[in-house]
Amino acid sequence: MQKNARAANNREIERKFLLRWLPDKLQRSRCYIIEQGYLASESAGRQVRLRKKGKTASLTFKVGRGTHREEREIRLSPKQFAALWPGTAGRRLRKVRCEIHWKNLVIELDIYQGRHAGLVVAEVEFPDRASCRRFKPPSWFGREVTGEKRYSNVRLANE
Amino acid sequence: MQKNARAANNREIERKFLLRWLPDKLQRSRCYIIEQGYLASESAGRQVRLRKKGKTASLTFKVGRGTHREEREIRLSPKQFAALWPGTAGRRLRKVRCEIHWKNLVIELDIYQGRHAGLVVAEVEFPDRASCRRFKPPSWFGREVTGEKRYSNVRLANE
Repeated sequence: MQKNARAANNREIERKFLLRWLPDKLQRSRCYIIEQGYLASESAGRQVRLRKKGKTASLTFKVGRGTHREEREIRLSPKQFAALWPGTAGRRLRKVRCEIHWKNLVIELDIYQGRHAGLVVAEVEFPDRASCRRFKPPSWFGREVTGEKRYSNVRLANE
Repeated sequence: MQKNARAANNREIERKFLLRWLPDKLQRSRCYIIEQGYLASESAGRQVRLRKKGKTASLTFKVGRGTHREEREIRLSPKQFAALWPGTAGRRLRKVRCEIHWKNLVIELDIYQGRHAGLVVAEVEFPDRASCRRFKPPSWFGREVTGEKRYSNVRLANE
């Protein structure tokens, strides 16, 4: 499990926002490059994703849309990753992810590269439903886009 | 790669048939149980399959329909398999596979269990396109169903 906040029972509870402006804290945050691609995706948000984050490769299964999703993830060896990665051709994206600590949460800022350069999206993962509901976004957050297909990674990768 | 005949370049060249009768050779063939399930599948034959064959677990990506398909497969550790398998709930099937040697080829007889009990399908994989075209089915083969959605494993698993 790569995420900092992780709900039990293979559920991720997450909200997604556009930004009004980039926060000052960004300069002091930890950033890394993520490359990901999709082996298969169905319309109901069911998907199998391959991801490389630094030297760490993983395969993630997700199903569902919106705030609550089922998520199952395994680490892949470099050899496993290399065997599957060509299957994602034409369905890939690249982004810089920066982790910003904010109150008790970690905000993940995704700064898209390539075709989607200019797009920045913030994701917040919650340990439970209550904290998800209670969440008051910081001033630099813009419109919430949780569950909007237009901003789903699988859609962005396929465009 | 688990198959006996395997084309280069991650392609499988395969034909599928129904049977007129079960061959005598079946009694002397090697059989094992296969359990498989699908994490995701798209209409164009793009799919991610989990499979357990004896103690061997694997994840396979396939794309395309008909005789020629792209196929990428990795072995999974028991732990990797256990983490992903619940994601295939409601999209599984179980079959007994028997391998029959016939001329220079291996015929795989799939005897379906559970909901599809009674269905038997023969698959033949070829080392190249020429041998695929030249293939003369044995007398116990029935109608060819290569590429017919009705007999695709992903369809049978979802029914």
